[in-house]
Amino acid sequence: MLNYNDQKNWPNNFGNLQSPINLSTNDNQAFNDFLPINVDDFYQLNNEIDDQTTIRLTGMGNATIFNREFAFQQVHFHTPAEHLVDNQQAPFEIHLVHKDNIGQTVVVALLLKIGNANSAIQEIINNFKVGAENNVSIKLSEWVPNLAKGFHYAGSLTTPPLTENVEWVVITNPEITVSQNQVNWFMQQFGGNNRECQPLNERNIEYYANK
Amino acid sequence: MLNYNDQKNWPNNFGNLQSPINLSTNDNQAFNDFLPINVDDFYQLNNEIDDQTTIRLTGMGNATIFNREFAFQQVHFHTPAEHLVDNQQAPFEIHLVHKDNIGQTVVVALLLKIGNANSAIQEIINNFKVGAENNVSIKLSEWVPNLAKGFHYAGSLTTPPLTENVEWVVITNPEITVSQNQVNWFMQQFGGNNRECQPLNERNIEYYANK
Repeated sequence: MLNYNDQKNWPNNFGNLQSPINLSTNDNQAFNDFLPINVDDFYQLNNEIDDQTTIRLTGMGNATIFNREFAFQQVHFHTPAEHLVDNQQAPFEIHLVHKDNIGQTVVVALLLKIGNANSAIQEIINNFKVGAENNVSIKLSEWVPNLAKGFHYAGSLTTPPLTENVEWVVITNPEITVSQNQVNWFMQQFGGNNRECQPLNERNIEYYANK
Repeated sequence: MLNYNDQKNWPNNFGNLQSPINLSTNDNQAFNDFLPINVDDFYQLNNEIDDQTTIRLTGMGNATIFNREFAFQQVHFHTPAEHLVDNQQAPFEIHLVHKDNIGQTVVVALLLKIGNANSAIQEIINNFKVGAENNVSIKLSEWVPNLAKGFHYAGSLTTPPLTENVEWVVITNPEITVSQNQVNWFMQQFGGNNRECQPLNERNIEYYANK
């Protein structure tokens, strides 16, 4: 029985809502609709940081995600992708981190395929300085598609403290691609930096699959 | 540096978003507006459970809270209140727990003053069976006001596992009251069951104070 006279010894453990996960186009609740996400005409990146395991860039911009207003905070990169889709792993995953007015987090993840080099990613590579932080001016005009398809679920940060207060929007049809050379550059600089997939447990995953 | 080859030893600790907290009508971001919350004409309680430290009742009903759809899950009670307002403690706090389609939690807390006995609370008291669970049929037609004032912030469960994925709507102007006899009944049955206030840390609290 919970002892209200011994509150400092209450257990304080995580639940079962960790990220990333293996997403399925079959098992989930499917909507014949697009993900309700709209972002500014452009997101502006202002500061580029060597985060030791990835590049992180802070910036500004605003998004409406599931009828709520969010401010863009930072973007970073994982090679290979952290989220799987039907057990398939994309070569590159972009995490756009957003917060609302009371600090709730939505991460918009983009799963990229190999194709043309992306010019903004190339600017980020060209501006990178080992162990340093530097000012940049990079626009992300095309990263989030207007008609996004993909998944919506409740999970966690994928790096410590792995906190479970993160809402995920994982977009499977970004209009941009990344080149094999760009992926190779990240792999050479940081090595593999994808957290392993975590148990789905009892979670309900929404799949937005406009036909 | 984060070691992606030793993921099982990553630290997994809580952040700084625990509940309850001491809410302030002065320090927060104030909106001359009501809390955007609308609930069904009635919430229906179906099952009453002796939860050892409080009474918990599960039920049904739907709410629109900050432009999102939620399903009512359960209600339980704290004597005295867990959230403070300007350092003042109400005698009784009701927690209405809601979840959306992907399992995200919003708790709507009602801070009650002493006044007339509430008939639904009296039904709950009359139906209580020590150590047991029983079917009930209780409506909560008036518990959540149409024009709600109060606070909105990101916090945690107030009982273990104290998980930090909870959005709080704390309503300071419920139209209902509780009688001193009803409060006394809960105190006699369960003793004080309020978690101590937790550090606010860097949180932004929204205060909806329609003038």
